[in-house]
Amino acid sequence: MSLSDRTSERSKGQLKDQKRNDILNAAKKLFRKYGVKKTTMRDIAAEAGLAVGTLYLYFENRDDVVLACAEAFEKIHKEQAKKAVAAEGELSARLKEYILTRFRAAAETRTSDSHVAEIAREVVRVRPTRLQDESKIMQETILKFFAQGAESGRFHIADPQRAMMVFLYSIAWFFPIEKSEFMPEPEESVLANIVDWFIETWSK
Amino acid sequence: MSLSDRTSERSKGQLKDQKRNDILNAAKKLFRKYGVKKTTMRDIAAEAGLAVGTLYLYFENRDDVVLACAEAFEKIHKEQAKKAVAAEGELSARLKEYILTRFRAAAETRTSDSHVAEIAREVVRVRPTRLQDESKIMQETILKFFAQGAESGRFHIADPQRAMMVFLYSIAWFFPIEKSEFMPEPEESVLANIVDWFIETWSK
Repeated sequence: MSLSDRTSERSKGQLKDQKRNDILNAAKKLFRKYGVKKTTMRDIAAEAGLAVGTLYLYFENRDDVVLACAEAFEKIHKEQAKKAVAAEGELSARLKEYILTRFRAAAETRTSDSHVAEIAREVVRVRPTRLQDESKIMQETILKFFAQGAESGRFHIADPQRAMMVFLYSIAWFFPIEKSEFMPEPEESVLANIVDWFIETWSK
Repeated sequence: MSLSDRTSERSKGQLKDQKRNDILNAAKKLFRKYGVKKTTMRDIAAEAGLAVGTLYLYFENRDDVVLACAEAFEKIHKEQAKKAVAAEGELSARLKEYILTRFRAAAETRTSDSHVAEIAREVVRVRPTRLQDESKIMQETILKFFAQGAESGRFHIADPQRAMMVFLYSIAWFFPIEKSEFMPEPEESVLANIVDWFIETWSK
């Protein structure tokens, strides 16, 4: 393969990724606006500016698109988590920022989708472990922060597994899937205060 | 007033309380089975074995019955809280038992009412501060436990107001108003473990 062939292969691959991304963005937009069930493959193709036949080269059916959207969200979370753990800067500030970033992402999804419950239902149907997977990434990330804290002497945590579990349940109220009719929307400043309290407690 | 008159007055009062209780129990049963809106004053009277005219001697209308039911629940909570704070026995065991008793009460309401959302909505309509009132009782009760712990040297809490706030948010996930489509029912054993963790932390 010549150099120019390789370059061409690479740019073809990039073009394909770009098109795939365009499709997912179009799909997300329509799902948020009309819900999953009312969005057809034809609608997604039109929104992405593609022929429907082209769309089927990328995704077998709508479930396949829903699954890819869920995986894209999970990929973002994984990247944020990896970055937060590996970044320069004070441990507790990074940990807090990670939690608040997740809070903002969840709040954005919850409040911008008028079909949030239906979308969540469809996602869980095509990927039954979706919520547990999300929780697992958080669990592993918190444990990595604890390990860093133990190494640097910043945190003194006797039982990291238990402390992680207590911490994640303690902030769970701030991550509802749906808006609640009875509860106010959780506030970031309150969550920040709670995270601070835990950091102080782990630091003792 | 002669002694026999006074006795008769007292038993009339007791009879009235008894009848009022019977009405509330009948109403609760019907609300849980059919919801509030589908239950009429006539239904409540029939279930309580009273003429509807007699029912109106006790309650002006259905909203008045709903309000009385909510107040009965609140009274039970207040009594449980008072008893837990005043009881003999080890402080942390009493505190834990208080929380788990509230958990059981909430779980029972949530899982036994098929119309729990509608009932909650009606209660909040006739008594808009209902959920905040409930939360306030818990806040005050926890602060009383903290004061006991400070006095006996059992707890070492620098900022009781903040620790109370963190604790109540930390267990809030275990007290949803409605069953969730996406979340599993909270488990008592997990809550117990979290309460234990906080008690250990306050004891350090």
